[in-house]
Amino acid sequence: MPTLTPYEQLEQEFRRLHAFRGTLALLRWDAAVTMPRGSADVRGEQLAALETECHALLASPRITRLLQRAEASRQGLNDWKLANLREMRRQRDHAIATPPSLVSRLARAVAKAEASWREARDRNDFSVLAPQLEEVVKLTRNRADMLGQSLGLDPYDALVDEFTPGLRSSEIGTTFATLSRRLPTLVSEAIDVQLSRPAVTITGRFSASRQRALCVEVMKSLGFPFDRGRFDEADRGLMEGVPGDIRVTARLDPRDPFAGLLGALHETGQALYELGLPPEWRDQPVGQELGMALEESQALLLEMIVGRSSAFVTYLMPLLERHYGVTGPEWTPENVYRRLNTVTRGPIRMDADELTYQAHIIVRYELEQRLLSGELPVRELPGAWNELMDRRLGICPASDNDGCLQDGHWALGSFGYFPSYGVGAVVAAQLWESLHEDVQGVEQQIASGDFGPALAWLRENVHALGAKLAVPDLVITTTGKALSAAPYLRYLERKYLSEW
Amino acid sequence: MPTLTPYEQLEQEFRRLHAFRGTLALLRWDAAVTMPRGSADVRGEQLAALETECHALLASPRITRLLQRAEASRQGLNDWKLANLREMRRQRDHAIATPPSLVSRLARAVAKAEASWREARDRNDFSVLAPQLEEVVKLTRNRADMLGQSLGLDPYDALVDEFTPGLRSSEIGTTFATLSRRLPTLVSEAIDVQLSRPAVTITGRFSASRQRALCVEVMKSLGFPFDRGRFDEADRGLMEGVPGDIRVTARLDPRDPFAGLLGALHETGQALYELGLPPEWRDQPVGQELGMALEESQALLLEMIVGRSSAFVTYLMPLLERHYGVTGPEWTPENVYRRLNTVTRGPIRMDADELTYQAHIIVRYELEQRLLSGELPVRELPGAWNELMDRRLGICPASDNDGCLQDGHWALGSFGYFPSYGVGAVVAAQLWESLHEDVQGVEQQIASGDFGPALAWLRENVHALGAKLAVPDLVITTTGKALSAAPYLRYLERKYLSEW
Repeated sequence: MPTLTPYEQLEQEFRRLHAFRGTLALLRWDAAVTMPRGSADVRGEQLAALETECHALLASPRITRLLQRAEASRQGLNDWKLANLREMRRQRDHAIATPPSLVSRLARAVAKAEASWREARDRNDFSVLAPQLEEVVKLTRNRADMLGQSLGLDPYDALVDEFTPGLRSSEIGTTFATLSRRLPTLVSEAIDVQLSRPAVTITGRFSASRQRALCVEVMKSLGFPFDRGRFDEADRGLMEGVPGDIRVTARLDPRDPFAGLLGALHETGQALYELGLPPEWRDQPVGQELGMALEESQALLLEMIVGRSSAFVTYLMPLLERHYGVTGPEWTPENVYRRLNTVTRGPIRMDADELTYQAHIIVRYELEQRLLSGELPVRELPGAWNELMDRRLGICPASDNDGCLQDGHWALGSFGYFPSYGVGAVVAAQLWESLHEDVQGVEQQIASGDFGPALAWLRENVHALGAKLAVPDLVITTTGKALSAAPYLRYLERKYLSEW
Repeated sequence: MPTLTPYEQLEQEFRRLHAFRGTLALLRWDAAVTMPRGSADVRGEQLAALETECHALLASPRITRLLQRAEASRQGLNDWKLANLREMRRQRDHAIATPPSLVSRLARAVAKAEASWREARDRNDFSVLAPQLEEVVKLTRNRADMLGQSLGLDPYDALVDEFTPGLRSSEIGTTFATLSRRLPTLVSEAIDVQLSRPAVTITGRFSASRQRALCVEVMKSLGFPFDRGRFDEADRGLMEGVPGDIRVTARLDPRDPFAGLLGALHETGQALYELGLPPEWRDQPVGQELGMALEESQALLLEMIVGRSSAFVTYLMPLLERHYGVTGPEWTPENVYRRLNTVTRGPIRMDADELTYQAHIIVRYELEQRLLSGELPVRELPGAWNELMDRRLGICPASDNDGCLQDGHWALGSFGYFPSYGVGAVVAAQLWESLHEDVQGVEQQIASGDFGPALAWLRENVHALGAKLAVPDLVITTTGKALSAAPYLRYLERKYLSEW
């Protein structure tokens, strides 16, 4: 057997890591879909053991040594292998940046904060959570400092980099500032336009089995490979698995004919991204998705831009008739389109429409930076939240549950996570603008149920690149322009002002 | 943090191993029940990575060192901990006995032989498999020699020990010799008795959903905890998982009202064993099942001895009426009982009834020993098989598919596996005889659907012992007598001769 080079040995180690991560994905999917409800303790032990193993693999002296040797002698490595080596290094550096003692202190603090968050929700009282959240914020600040030092980044950027490699707060800040200047007036204008031609309410009961059949038919049209993937009902939407075994779930609410389908589209968008990753790199870091912002862009492109377009409604109408057996004046293409795109100011992010969603994200982005810098004391969060919601969206939450208690992310130690959502929507619109220029007649194709050309464009220009480029570089390469909020605002203005 | 003793460090390592094994169980369950059919390649990589990890953990120098240190200073270890240490040692010795080069040669040979076995089945021609099986036999012989040397056992006993620790061919041979003296005539006598009062044929279609509901109700009566377990339809019966998350499957054939239920009982018997293991040791080797023979005994005790008894039929009748809506002269308790216990000589082990099953096992036991010793050349297997089937059961298979090609076990390298089935049935009857003496009125209890006292006896006398004793010692401790075929023959004679 010929001796393997350090780089080849690294590929071997990361292949093992990929198998472990695929296994972790199955453990999570099973917990959401098929696991008996009393078995969470057993599952927790399995997840912890495997996560520890993944961490130990990445943090091992052997990996460090191999990385140094591979980096010292790069000859013979093509650009994919070099990008792979860079991603290996990034994963390893993230893994070793936080000392194990801090990891376990944070894990304990998060466990307490999560329990307090649930209790605080039950009592609708943020002060129940405040002391525990303070501890999580303090430890996360330590972690961000260490991570930043080790990666040569600002502390907050280091946290963002965990979710979307290469994304920096300078870009996020510029993008969100542009959005914050236009969105409040755009929301008001859109609501005015919609008041003049409101959607008719749609009621009825739509059984889970009918919704399921509809979702499966749409997913088949989109090319979701059911011989290498599943669709299941669960209490939340999920995309889990690895290319070769992708699992999508959606929450199916019998009172809502569309929420389940749109949720399925969201997860399917992300699944199609996974499925389009370069197959020859599928078990290596460079063959993985490029982080949350791009994942989210693919999800939102399908759910929001395609799935709520009038072209898609044209395709959808006969399917709605067939699966739901619906008729009546509210079931016209125009009304379904309006129903899918109605804008409402509300306090809850999870219920927000496409247009108001960004305000929720921007509020979280601004607040988490102030929490981490120490500028905003944890106990003053509810007031700051409500004030900012009012400024960004013109909404003042009536209670903590409608305000800063609605998400559990911070209690769970997820800081630097929200901006990827907002940036994802911006990226989606920028990609869509280029796709729209390149793919002639894409709307007619979608209206006739032919998603092939649009998907082929995404596969070639986005999915097939894997993690070769960071998100900002991918955007430049693919669209010819730097990441910008302009295409997103153009898209929103056209959709919510001109085309209603 | 106080320093852990070597023994305590071993417990920590085996706790990790337990989490990995539980994860492997989920990967297998998912492959049988929920995995998309095209994803077997991905699953294969995940299973291989995790199995390799388990092996590396057991075979690591650290474990060897800790075992030596823990064994050198046993003070402070109670009998459970000592038994745990013994089981750790046994697992480690098994893991390191075969050198990695032989493991991978065997894996390659098995992969080829499995493909050849399928092709041989398609052509109904053993000669297609013969060369590949020869290679597997040769390598297994090497493996058995090494394993035997390392464990201080005869080569064949070393293979048996992998499936049922502590079981030796001396005991198997004595038991099977006793059975072989009585069973052929008992089968003839039983068939004669049954001819005088034959069962009326039962036909109809019994949908999977009705069978499923019946199985679930019976499993609930048996105390199967559906908040920590599942029951699913699959193309074969399986019990997978760990105490805390146990998953049972059965094949549900709409033409057969009983096969699915009996399959579910088989797996539930094994599941209840897992669930009764000592909870404080559940993540340690001594808290695991005691190997295949005892697992099989618990499965057969429920499926064969309880599940086909007239007491159980009494309990079952109203359930059959309710779930299947059946009436008619063939649906009397007497006829259902006879239908469940009809004896037929046939060539296929998987289709065999309780009484003729042992002959199939004994034939395999005798042949696999002769194959491994080299006394029987692989190419002469079909003739030897048919001759022995004739001698032990009075059946001469009409073709290779009805003969030595029916099982894939040997092609897959599983030698030493079959005797645990036969011994399991013998152990089941011996345990049942003791249970029957100790639990007053157990048949009336079963007839009324009260399985509690019988299960409590099994839990206390069998399940709660975990792997503390080897099977032969457990039988002595629990029944007061050495492992013996006598209770089994008494049980069969009563059931098939006196009580028909």
